[in-house]
Amino acid sequence: MASDKLINRTNVHVALLHYPVLNKSGETIVSAVTPMDLHDISRAVRTYGVDQFFVVTPLKDQQKLVRSVIDHWIQGYGATYNPTRRKALETVRLTDTLESVKLEIRSLDRVAPRVVVTSSREHPASISFETLGGMLDDDKPHLLVFGTAWGLAPEVIQEADYCLRPIRGRTAYNHLSVRSAATVVLDRLLGC
Amino acid sequence: MASDKLINRTNVHVALLHYPVLNKSGETIVSAVTPMDLHDISRAVRTYGVDQFFVVTPLKDQQKLVRSVIDHWIQGYGATYNPTRRKALETVRLTDTLESVKLEIRSLDRVAPRVVVTSSREHPASISFETLGGMLDDDKPHLLVFGTAWGLAPEVIQEADYCLRPIRGRTAYNHLSVRSAATVVLDRLLGC
Repeated sequence: MASDKLINRTNVHVALLHYPVLNKSGETIVSAVTPMDLHDISRAVRTYGVDQFFVVTPLKDQQKLVRSVIDHWIQGYGATYNPTRRKALETVRLTDTLESVKLEIRSLDRVAPRVVVTSSREHPASISFETLGGMLDDDKPHLLVFGTAWGLAPEVIQEADYCLRPIRGRTAYNHLSVRSAATVVLDRLLGC
Repeated sequence: MASDKLINRTNVHVALLHYPVLNKSGETIVSAVTPMDLHDISRAVRTYGVDQFFVVTPLKDQQKLVRSVIDHWIQGYGATYNPTRRKALETVRLTDTLESVKLEIRSLDRVAPRVVVTSSREHPASISFETLGGMLDDDKPHLLVFGTAWGLAPEVIQEADYCLRPIRGRTAYNHLSVRSAATVVLDRLLGC
């Protein structure tokens, strides 16, 4: 719809990383893709007017799984059964590495994105939602990076331009699903 | 943790309805339970300091499914594998009908709850998040009701005390998963 296009934030991109992420013991792993993540985050991405949702995994069998989900809902039976899922999953870009995501955005937007990682843990020098909201007002592209499993590996956080402050509820419990957390981050930044 | 308790909003309760809800064609149905809803919404409920998450289904086989998920994570292998899931799923109360939920809250809090339904569609006389946030400051219990499938049946909306305004992103697309939508509603009302 034309009216959708007009209010899209084309300078915000979302990436969901399956490598390098941590397991329960704090070791770096490649996590398996959870199809529900693809559905829920693509629906949020579409709702909040973000153009591209990069699903990042280096594993060929996991890429095949992502493609089969997308094909079912974009070209297969799912596309006619539920066109709103198609519209959401059309935002997905399957990519090998975070580096490739940055290169793709750079080639598309002609400038490197500000890389903003998210975490459920406090990090020194993390920025507030208000600060990031203000930064979005310029034309520079921004890449919001979410980690699966037990979160992004430390090197991804260290190499990022910014780390966003964790979502806090009213308790010390901080274990939202990445699906819910990504939606809340987009709502805080782009919701009405 | 004691510090969790201190900031809990014990006057907010959440219910997820599987009946009466609508299917794609607008007919009233009983929907099947999606285990991911139990995980994600209980994690949000725990994060935002809500005490009780009522999962409402009249179907015995679906209640059995809910019990098997809860048992696995509260008493079974899952409890030691991932204690944070246990802490989340401990908030779940399995209930037959919305009426029973209201009676249970009434018996617990000694006063009937204000019933606040949620919808992805605009309804006349719906209230804003700010208005509801202000209402939460008194001691009266509030029950936030979410519908699965294609949303709550009209009679649930008509009989409620209040209908909350839909979550809006930046586009006309309004198809968040109920898991994500419930988390965003709690974040808007109770997030920090």
